[in-house]
Amino acid sequence: MQTEKFVYFDNINTTFPDPRVVRKIDEVLNFRLGNPSAHIHSAGIAAGKVVDEAREKVAAYIGAAPETLIFTSGATEANNLAITGFLKANPEFGFVCSNIEHFSVLNQIRSLRNSVKTSILDVDSYGLVEPDSLEKVLKNNRSIVSLSLANPEIGTMQDIEKISEICSRNGSILHSDATAAAGLIEIDVNKMGIDLLTLSGHNIYGPAGVGALYVNKKIRLASIFEGGNQESGIRPGTENVPGIAGMGEACEALKGDMKSHEKRLRDLGNDLWKSLQESVRFVNFTGHPEKRLPGHVSFWVEHIEGESLLLLLSMNGVMASSGSACSSNLKAKDEDELMASHVLAAVGVPSDICSGSITLSAGRYNTEEDFNYVKSVLPGLVEKLLTMSPSYDDYMKNKETTDG
Amino acid sequence: MQTEKFVYFDNINTTFPDPRVVRKIDEVLNFRLGNPSAHIHSAGIAAGKVVDEAREKVAAYIGAAPETLIFTSGATEANNLAITGFLKANPEFGFVCSNIEHFSVLNQIRSLRNSVKTSILDVDSYGLVEPDSLEKVLKNNRSIVSLSLANPEIGTMQDIEKISEICSRNGSILHSDATAAAGLIEIDVNKMGIDLLTLSGHNIYGPAGVGALYVNKKIRLASIFEGGNQESGIRPGTENVPGIAGMGEACEALKGDMKSHEKRLRDLGNDLWKSLQESVRFVNFTGHPEKRLPGHVSFWVEHIEGESLLLLLSMNGVMASSGSACSSNLKAKDEDELMASHVLAAVGVPSDICSGSITLSAGRYNTEEDFNYVKSVLPGLVEKLLTMSPSYDDYMKNKETTDG
Repeated sequence: MQTEKFVYFDNINTTFPDPRVVRKIDEVLNFRLGNPSAHIHSAGIAAGKVVDEAREKVAAYIGAAPETLIFTSGATEANNLAITGFLKANPEFGFVCSNIEHFSVLNQIRSLRNSVKTSILDVDSYGLVEPDSLEKVLKNNRSIVSLSLANPEIGTMQDIEKISEICSRNGSILHSDATAAAGLIEIDVNKMGIDLLTLSGHNIYGPAGVGALYVNKKIRLASIFEGGNQESGIRPGTENVPGIAGMGEACEALKGDMKSHEKRLRDLGNDLWKSLQESVRFVNFTGHPEKRLPGHVSFWVEHIEGESLLLLLSMNGVMASSGSACSSNLKAKDEDELMASHVLAAVGVPSDICSGSITLSAGRYNTEEDFNYVKSVLPGLVEKLLTMSPSYDDYMKNKETTDG
Repeated sequence: MQTEKFVYFDNINTTFPDPRVVRKIDEVLNFRLGNPSAHIHSAGIAAGKVVDEAREKVAAYIGAAPETLIFTSGATEANNLAITGFLKANPEFGFVCSNIEHFSVLNQIRSLRNSVKTSILDVDSYGLVEPDSLEKVLKNNRSIVSLSLANPEIGTMQDIEKISEICSRNGSILHSDATAAAGLIEIDVNKMGIDLLTLSGHNIYGPAGVGALYVNKKIRLASIFEGGNQESGIRPGTENVPGIAGMGEACEALKGDMKSHEKRLRDLGNDLWKSLQESVRFVNFTGHPEKRLPGHVSFWVEHIEGESLLLLLSMNGVMASSGSACSSNLKAKDEDELMASHVLAAVGVPSDICSGSITLSAGRYNTEEDFNYVKSVLPGLVEKLLTMSPSYDDYMKNKETTDG
């Protein structure tokens, strides 16, 4: 039953590096570069130039000035630096986020709530933050608001311009984690009105182990760990020169055909949604039907377990996920806890009839054939699982009784 | 006056990656790996295997079990995790370090001193911690003691086994930053009696952007930032798969010829020391003459500025440093502050007659020819600077007066 097929629909959790990124990293590793802080000799100066060039390329992707970017080890560190680093430097602010944020945002409440006013906003059944509820919270308390551009698990994209308008009108600061959205849509921090933005290298066809935080010039941050004076003293530690170079190259590679890939993936994603709607019995889609990431389709199926469907998909060469990989290795105390995604709970998916959701997330390397393959194979796998499902069996017996 | 010569004596600040490391990273980047947390499909499982294999290789280098290693973004983060992470989980302990530690250790006092008893130990003129003064501090307070295996700026290696014996006898925990020593000497955490050990990828012929913290199984740590459950929940964030793979390969590459390189570099270093002692006027060596890193020679020269000598060396193709590159971009308020290294001050180098020190640090790629070139070129550069030195001019006039 194993197959040679390799149809990767888990781009939300990691993408494969662009060949230009791989070449760049190889070049940098072979270049006998010094430590960028070693300003006194040519090997150190050359390393500093590699970092500077990458900073320009990453900044260009989000329409920012190079000096507004701080390189980090990834999105998790960038999210911690944005929120805890901001609140260390600006302790008079509160902290607001939604109940569908990534754990690297949401869990910061644990350490912040003793010193800072914290609020968690509910989202609606599509995963959207209600502008009114945000306005109400901010009226009472200037805050740093952290809302991701898009949710990885259900694909919903926030109305970020509306949100940023509310934040700035109330003297508040907007941080947005763009990990899920970057690489799929165009981002402009000025147009969007974002003060702090998190980027992840490995989610935009760059390498893992590197990320960046955009910091609007008007904002003061404190570092979250101690050390040397790298990255304007905000992020100590010798720079990840090959990783940073790779992330720069990834942003450079995105530039040319961002719009065309966005349109192509949006059309293919919409088409897949429609196809599954018609061909998969008991399907329930999650997230907003229009305000969503291009090429992202997420759903759960009544009577069957998400995990089982993922496994069957995997055995047929289709790699998908149950939302964010980051939550998949949480140590759950029991099976119920393991199944209950905080995102699904937040959008009101009933935990008694939903046993796990599926996220199909495409990227620029996915072809129309990949989408067609999923369309052709998925309905059959669902049917197979339905025949083995005690819950479906009960349902059918019940139905026969009622119908009969 | 520029030259094509490339004689790299700044290995203490970064090393060049081993060719096997470069190949491994290239392979990993090309392998279409998933997110290691995506346990449900083959691409994710393959990524997890890459991380597991690397963990075994890094562990083998320090004689530890694989599950005792936490991968980080580098030594700075590992030092912060070791100390702040330990004290978060064990708030009844104090914190002790020496006055020649790296800023990523020393500066943690700023955030810790409000909640924890902190002590800074003076070192002697060689940079060695006095066992009695450590014993005295620990008698009053169980502590986490952080002392680096070797100091990057002056090369001195602590008597770590004596120190660990004192720590364990007093119910204290020993953390050691091995950034400067690793790759140059053999390390065995059990023989050395170290509870927490920091390793840096780019200092052992691996890539930048990755490090590791060894954590003795008996020790509980708290994470220093929030997020997913990666690295046993101690270090959240998607794993730096290519960087970790590169660091694993670097450790694997060290194994075979560690001892022979250590002996070769020790002999060449001692020989360089003797040669400079005879050929360089007004030379003052720093650090311990025997208890020091192999291939590491550090000194300052009366009447001349360290920075000028570094510059002339660089123009002649010799790349050296003024100790730790991490301190070279500190924002100093005035020139005095810029010159005064906290390490030189700690070992009693007189700041009125010393204007900056030089660190020549060799690595396994340095040849005997490299050492001979330094021996041949350095004395002449010192003489050239002496002829331009007002201080030397005064000294000579004074001498003539006294002698005449």
